[in-house]
Amino acid sequence: MLKLFIGNKNYSSWSMRPWVLLKQAGIPFEEVFVRFDSFNANSEFKKALAGVTPTAKVPVLQDGPLVVWDTLAIAEYVAEQYPDKQLWPADRAARARARSICAEMHSGFTALRGNCPMNIEARLADTGALIWRDKPAVRSDVQRLVEMWTSLLQEHGGPMLFGQFSIADAYFAPVCMRLQTYALPVPPMIADYITRVSTLPGVKAWIDQALAEKDFLDFEEPYRLKP
Amino acid sequence: MLKLFIGNKNYSSWSMRPWVLLKQAGIPFEEVFVRFDSFNANSEFKKALAGVTPTAKVPVLQDGPLVVWDTLAIAEYVAEQYPDKQLWPADRAARARARSICAEMHSGFTALRGNCPMNIEARLADTGALIWRDKPAVRSDVQRLVEMWTSLLQEHGGPMLFGQFSIADAYFAPVCMRLQTYALPVPPMIADYITRVSTLPGVKAWIDQALAEKDFLDFEEPYRLKP
Repeated sequence: MLKLFIGNKNYSSWSMRPWVLLKQAGIPFEEVFVRFDSFNANSEFKKALAGVTPTAKVPVLQDGPLVVWDTLAIAEYVAEQYPDKQLWPADRAARARARSICAEMHSGFTALRGNCPMNIEARLADTGALIWRDKPAVRSDVQRLVEMWTSLLQEHGGPMLFGQFSIADAYFAPVCMRLQTYALPVPPMIADYITRVSTLPGVKAWIDQALAEKDFLDFEEPYRLKP
Repeated sequence: MLKLFIGNKNYSSWSMRPWVLLKQAGIPFEEVFVRFDSFNANSEFKKALAGVTPTAKVPVLQDGPLVVWDTLAIAEYVAEQYPDKQLWPADRAARARARSICAEMHSGFTALRGNCPMNIEARLADTGALIWRDKPAVRSDVQRLVEMWTSLLQEHGGPMLFGQFSIADAYFAPVCMRLQTYALPVPPMIADYITRVSTLPGVKAWIDQALAEKDFLDFEEPYRLKP
């Protein structure tokens, strides 16, 4: 069976992507939780991954002797292994577009990612309002997301970015979490998409487990003190 | 015919990847050069890309009405369109590994990329020696590359990372350029691989055109004054 190594559900946006993809697609897998104690070389986290992956990062997918790391490579691998699940859009042009936006996410949106780290249980609307006021790069990342999602939702008619659920929605699910936590302003059409993503069974399962985690990590909490 | 929008050949490491891939694979394409004048919103560069791609970045691939952006999405698109070229390794496990290392490159190696920007015509061995002495994160990026390439070259027997030329070699070609420009220390096996990559016809064509460019751009030159 596939084995997916992930970090803390409340914080690990990269872990969320393949987990949600597998869960929502109904592909069975075993979850291996590797807690974020720290990212130092001698941390338990790094020790747990030492024999598993050369990058010592999560997520990592094991399929028997085969190790696949990095979310994009995992997504491609799973899409190839389960063609019947149509994890990429079946249409050639839509598929190229889906890959373009996932790759854009993979290397971009650094202002949003840096200033608004994923923190599912937190509600940081005031922090978000300050960020929104003071960080033009965050506003421009959000503006690009709004344009991207609006045009895709209009073109394919929803409910997901390419009609039915695809890798693209799993890829942007953590972004939906950030937009909610920091209450960043988006048009109603986008707010509705965020709600629909959050209530997908695969996403809801992740959120519920993130909320149950209750593992406050100072180094993932630039805006909160431990209660 | 495919149309590939690229930036300055001396500097644009992201443009180099798909250009080298297409060239080396013998896939015909039209090149559209978009000079880096600046990356400001009102630059000629941004204006030239305005109607072409939503991200206003190079590289971008146009295939008739279809627009594909970001190197990874371009690579996947071209691999799908030209299955006979075997741009990804044919073996399932090797393909998963190739995708893993390309995705790792896509979002990682930030210390090497930040400190050693691609500059094909420059020879900056002293700068490289200072960086090597003072920047442990660069040393650790290079160490990871050396481990990655060594194990692949040993496993597949060379001459390229997965035996014959693949997307992975195109993906790491700009890294080979950086290692040469800054004369960063690598073992002989890796130095030989860098030489082999540099002499691939598709890579050599890019290098020759980069050397002929002679377009010194201050904002791409943290270590040199205009001669």
